[in-house]
Amino acid sequence: MYYFIYVTASSKEEAEKIAKHLLEKKLAACVNFWKIESMYWWEGEIQRDEEYAMIVKTKAEKFSEVREEIKKIHSYTTPCICALNVEEGDRKYLDWIDETVE
Amino acid sequence: MYYFIYVTASSKEEAEKIAKHLLEKKLAACVNFWKIESMYWWEGEIQRDEEYAMIVKTKAEKFSEVREEIKKIHSYTTPCICALNVEEGDRKYLDWIDETVE
Amino acid sequence: MYYFIYVTASSKEEAEKIAKHLLEKKLAACVNFWKIESMYWWEGEIQRDEEYAMIVKTKAEKFSEVREEIKKIHSYTTPCICALNVEEGDRKYLDWIDETVE
Repeated sequence: MYYFIYVTASSKEEAEKIAKHLLEKKLAACVNFWKIESMYWWEGEIQRDEEYAMIVKTKAEKFSEVREEIKKIHSYTTPCICALNVEEGDRKYLDWIDETVE
Repeated sequence: MYYFIYVTASSKEEAEKIAKHLLEKKLAACVNFWKIESMYWWEGEIQRDEEYAMIVKTKAEKFSEVREEIKKIHSYTTPCICALNVEEGDRKYLDWIDETVE
Repeated sequence: MYYFIYVTASSKEEAEKIAKHLLEKKLAACVNFWKIESMYWWEGEIQRDEEYAMIVKTKAEKFSEVREEIKKIHSYTTPCICALNVEEGDRKYLDWIDETVE
């Protein structure tokens, strides 16, 4: 089983830092990230921020380790770390994830 | 259970309007949105447009209410409102969704 | 059943080419795409690139055909072609996918 783990970061620098950390630990094969805008409830008010969305591509069994490693370095107290299941994928690509993630 | 509900809007303003509406009704904890390009079949031709993609983060049980509230204010007759299941997530973040969405 | 098939392309032009190809073959009803940055392992090093992410909206049963058609024209030897399952969706929108995809 494989996951796309969706994470949001406070900035491009933080997204890069998290991506690099997960890749160096071989907890992800690839990380995509891009700029987004966010509106959300926080401390009783609707907040508005610019963030970076990330998709961390990895094996499903690595979710807990990925979550813990992100929480060690993330600037938020409650970061969004949510896994979407890859239902089907190109076999060659999934094999590459298997070979890359340790 | 939790959903990331993927919605497309015609503009940034419409994405903001939908996000605000859902947040004010406490039907979402957070909404991310960003600019995209779209190619799609419509009235027998391949159309090309700029849109905004949205991810509405909420409890799965709220899908019908979210769908109806979006359709009340959306400019499209057939908006994309599709739920992706959050397979696993950081417990603290999911608890925050539970506390925020009513 | 319906899929959002997530694909990454090397450029906007390639994303457009793939989208057009899938739409013309009636293998997709709609394709969204946007610019992303990627960090990934390749040939023993962490690589850094700009890419385009794509979401191909189609019927789940079309996954194999979509995958094969993408691989025919994609510039990568191992493109990311991964399906996310649409858990629930607005009925009118899903009907439109059914009518559009052959």
